[in-house]
Amino acid sequence: MEFPSKAIEEAVNELAGLPGIGRKTALRLALHILKQREEEAEQLGHAIINLRKNVKYCTRCHNLSDNDLCNICTNPRRNEKILCVVEDMKDVIALESTHQFTGLYHILGGLINPLQGIGPSMLNVESMLGRVRDEGVEEVIFAFSANIEGDTTTFYLQKKLAPMKVRMSSIARGVPVGTDLEFTDEITLARSLINRTPLGNVGE
Amino acid sequence: MEFPSKAIEEAVNELAGLPGIGRKTALRLALHILKQREEEAEQLGHAIINLRKNVKYCTRCHNLSDNDLCNICTNPRRNEKILCVVEDMKDVIALESTHQFTGLYHILGGLINPLQGIGPSMLNVESMLGRVRDEGVEEVIFAFSANIEGDTTTFYLQKKLAPMKVRMSSIARGVPVGTDLEFTDEITLARSLINRTPLGNVGE
Repeated sequence: MEFPSKAIEEAVNELAGLPGIGRKTALRLALHILKQREEEAEQLGHAIINLRKNVKYCTRCHNLSDNDLCNICTNPRRNEKILCVVEDMKDVIALESTHQFTGLYHILGGLINPLQGIGPSMLNVESMLGRVRDEGVEEVIFAFSANIEGDTTTFYLQKKLAPMKVRMSSIARGVPVGTDLEFTDEITLARSLINRTPLGNVGE
Repeated sequence: MEFPSKAIEEAVNELAGLPGIGRKTALRLALHILKQREEEAEQLGHAIINLRKNVKYCTRCHNLSDNDLCNICTNPRRNEKILCVVEDMKDVIALESTHQFTGLYHILGGLINPLQGIGPSMLNVESMLGRVRDEGVEEVIFAFSANIEGDTTTFYLQKKLAPMKVRMSSIARGVPVGTDLEFTDEITLARSLINRTPLGNVGE
């Protein structure tokens, strides 16, 4: 691709460096930016620069934050006795949008993945153990993706936490709500049988 | 979606304003930017700001340009007698990458589209007629997409140019190279029959 202008060439090269954006998409985005008002392009540009410059990480749970402690950790209405351990910030956003969890989070920053060379020492494991030890945590919930990395990480943390006599659980694996049983894969179905939910007596 | 930090919220909102980028993709892009070095995020941000600030339009062909006249218009090796009329800059890049065209371009900035309220007065038609009149153009090639808007624009410009006694042509419509005949739609196939290319005698 040859560009008629240096400015557009640089913008396309930079945009094409983002994940999932090829050169044709980058060109489409650049042409869209050209059609906007100058203030709008500046807002976008500054938002990207400020993002990297201003974002901090919460010193307690490792979530993104504007200050030393994030909004969730400083919220007095959250239950400090329940700790939900997740892979990254996207999982916190997903769980928060359910409005079902009122405890605190701890972000590992990844999952144990020997194939990609990610071991426990590269994750925020020590700080999690410290929190369980020192902050009076009574229950730890593992909320990882349902794959080998998630299960490996759960198993590793389970062993590490065993001496601390804390209650542990994993989010349920089962048939997703709204899915037809016949289209559910056999591993999910097997797990949903093993972890079946007891139902009470109705109409007694 | 609730964000733990203002900086990431702003970045996601801005990125999600780009065409084809939803909020989940915007979040993925923002997390990618967070993992980069600060210089890289600054390069991307400044490229976007500079794009809108520094890009000019060629006063002759309306292509994007760093100066008053674009690289193609100022290139002394281009043939000024052939003018290729296209919809927008993307088409120039596509045609240039064929290395088959050595003439000049004229960018209309759109195609006539009554349904969307785009009439000839909103396009760079007058300046094109001026160029054909004053610059000694001998042939005008219409290189538009093969749809109703492209055909309408061709027809309109054909009528406008008729008094100027200039040679006119449209890029060929036909079976795309590498495509099986059986999968080609009937309109394309009909056009490729009507505009069949004469072949010379071989082996005389």
